[in-house]
Amino acid sequence: MSDIVLEQSDKTRVRRLPERGRYDRDTIDAILDESLICHVGFVADGHPVVIPTIHTRIGDDLYFHGSPAAGILRNLREGADACVTVTLLDGLVLARSAFHHSMNYRSAVVFGKAEEVTDREEKLRVLAALVEHVCRGRSADARGPNEKELKQTLVLRLPIREASAKVRTGPPGDEPEDYSLPIWAGVLPLTLTPGEPVPDNNAATPDYVTRYER
Amino acid sequence: MSDIVLEQSDKTRVRRLPERGRYDRDTIDAILDESLICHVGFVADGHPVVIPTIHTRIGDDLYFHGSPAAGILRNLREGADACVTVTLLDGLVLARSAFHHSMNYRSAVVFGKAEEVTDREEKLRVLAALVEHVCRGRSADARGPNEKELKQTLVLRLPIREASAKVRTGPPGDEPEDYSLPIWAGVLPLTLTPGEPVPDNNAATPDYVTRYER
Repeated sequence: MSDIVLEQSDKTRVRRLPERGRYDRDTIDAILDESLICHVGFVADGHPVVIPTIHTRIGDDLYFHGSPAAGILRNLREGADACVTVTLLDGLVLARSAFHHSMNYRSAVVFGKAEEVTDREEKLRVLAALVEHVCRGRSADARGPNEKELKQTLVLRLPIREASAKVRTGPPGDEPEDYSLPIWAGVLPLTLTPGEPVPDNNAATPDYVTRYER
Repeated sequence: MSDIVLEQSDKTRVRRLPERGRYDRDTIDAILDESLICHVGFVADGHPVVIPTIHTRIGDDLYFHGSPAAGILRNLREGADACVTVTLLDGLVLARSAFHHSMNYRSAVVFGKAEEVTDREEKLRVLAALVEHVCRGRSADARGPNEKELKQTLVLRLPIREASAKVRTGPPGDEPEDYSLPIWAGVLPLTLTPGEPVPDNNAATPDYVTRYER
């Protein structure tokens, strides 16, 4: 837990439905940490490009990794502005009117420029954290990266400085005159749920797989 | 089902792991239709911005809606280039090596310029389709938009012409020498699962809520 509240910038200020805006790092970090993937936006040849990828957060920084050959990482490594957005869906909001249908969600957005992580120790720490982000407990079991794999992996760091979150919770908000309509209204919660593990060998299935939750 | 295969462009060609690329409209459409939300990227004042929003597909077009005051719609309405990305997570791929950890996923990306839908009938059709996209069966029950709400809603159309998908399925792909390691490896499937509906009134809960699935 931290008490950090980020300053609002022209980019991070939530203008549309401002009551949903959150600028405290606790809220932003919790969303970044729960979401398995993010969508990274950048500008390539003047055109917007949005790519899904895995991220992880360590303290005040967000990290990404991938092949140095991947277009997204090449662009970000060269100092392109990035916009990283993560969205967690919490439920369908079925209002009485079509107009007020909505979703309960928590989203976070981080703006900034990424930098390559070149320090070997930091790189190893980030790669372990990326595995832990996806599945807590896994990095102790998995065979760690060798020198060849380290060379084949580009790691980028994006400071969480210009960021905000947007959160909708609760029941539908209908027009006053619609509340008497005989139409079911409410929220249908949604969660990302693990199924039965599909093993690729005969080793014992670890607890972090059988009891996986986010 | 259609037999349409889109031509690859510099933007849509899957360069990284090209064997995961798909260019047939059936695959692209199925991903767009299953995903509850998309992430829309555009360039504002030279900076990339990525916003989550609800979409729906009718035939060869993707549609978005929202307040005319929302920054995203204002930008797209004015002819900004858009990149719309949807991503469905199907499972965690836990390999023997940290390096080969991955996810099973299906993503689709659509590039283009959006146009405002001004025809009243098309607009009404799209607004019903947006509700149906989120919850099939709902648009027949919900109170439809009145004139004031229609005016307050901007609807945009983006043709699905420059688009591609990227799909990963199946077990981990480890290095040959790692297969003998005594580490559990496999896939943990993930699905977006509905929970118990939270009613906002005493009307009977419709089947499309109690039996919701995507």
